[in-house]
Amino acid sequence: MTHYPEPIIKLIQSLSRLPGIGKKTAERLTLHILHASPGEAATLAADIIELKSSIRLCEICFSFSDQERCKICTDPSRDKSLICVVENPTDMAAVEKSKGYHGIYHILGGLLSPIDGIGPDDIRIRELMKRAVPGKIQEIILATKTNVEGEATASYILAKLKKTNIRLTRIASGIPMGGDLQYIDHLTMQKAMEKRYGF
Amino acid sequence: MTHYPEPIIKLIQSLSRLPGIGKKTAERLTLHILHASPGEAATLAADIIELKSSIRLCEICFSFSDQERCKICTDPSRDKSLICVVENPTDMAAVEKSKGYHGIYHILGGLLSPIDGIGPDDIRIRELMKRAVPGKIQEIILATKTNVEGEATASYILAKLKKTNIRLTRIASGIPMGGDLQYIDHLTMQKAMEKRYGF
Repeated sequence: MTHYPEPIIKLIQSLSRLPGIGKKTAERLTLHILHASPGEAATLAADIIELKSSIRLCEICFSFSDQERCKICTDPSRDKSLICVVENPTDMAAVEKSKGYHGIYHILGGLLSPIDGIGPDDIRIRELMKRAVPGKIQEIILATKTNVEGEATASYILAKLKKTNIRLTRIASGIPMGGDLQYIDHLTMQKAMEKRYGF
Repeated sequence: MTHYPEPIIKLIQSLSRLPGIGKKTAERLTLHILHASPGEAATLAADIIELKSSIRLCEICFSFSDQERCKICTDPSRDKSLICVVENPTDMAAVEKSKGYHGIYHILGGLLSPIDGIGPDDIRIRELMKRAVPGKIQEIILATKTNVEGEATASYILAKLKKTNIRLTRIASGIPMGGDLQYIDHLTMQKAMEKRYGF
């Protein structure tokens, strides 16, 4: 690689700092950008700059936004009495992609993890408490992931909000759709049996 | 994806135009850049801009350079009487990585391909002829790839340069090192048998 001129080496190094991009891929991308039209390369560079300068967190749900309030919080067709609590914007994107949800969100920005020194004050639990106004909010869905930290976070929020008369729910665990029973771990299977429902 | 703010969608789209980067990877990279330090993002954007503005072709060998002449053509330790002819800078990089070559290069910028309308005037064969000065150049190694176009290009150059008393060679074909004989295609095997050498 050392035979490349400096600007090529620099871009290869910058790109290979990105997650999942190795030296080889970075080299391929750099040579592609070199051959691309000047407009395409300029657009890419401008989009990176714009991203960093214009994105902030929605003041209501803390998801990414280029305004004070995000698209979802300002969408009149969304049910504002229904809050789905997720760990991060990626999890929120996963719920959005399913197209099965029409409420709004609350992004915690992390999960409780005593081992990593992450307590209730390090994630946006206080902000969730402020939003949990009985009468205004009908239901809060706890959609943190189903590992130890996710379950602990859900339990903590549950305990904190129990006294309000807001309905509190947890996303279902069980066999994935199309999933073959023989490949399911036994904890998931236990959960699926425990939460079985009648017709 | 439509729930993301505009600047995020724009960068995802710009990144997914790169080869081998799908929507999912582009989304992951965008969220990484969003969380990265402002410095890291600015560096990446600046490196893209600098790449496009500062890279040109070496006036001798036509590889990438940020000067009139590239690092290799100006390296006093390189043997200037030995030219390795390759299709493109990626192939040149492959030869460089092997660290087995100490001459200089000639980048054709393509291969002869009548089917795609690429003739001798469309690639840098005339420029190679100009460089092929007997006395100054001892040997020209034809290192175009071993498919139909690569072989045709090598043959064409061979015919053109036959009358000079420059030594003309072609890179060897055969079983890759560590290659298992049973997985080798029969053309490679034929070539490996035909070009067998004594001890």
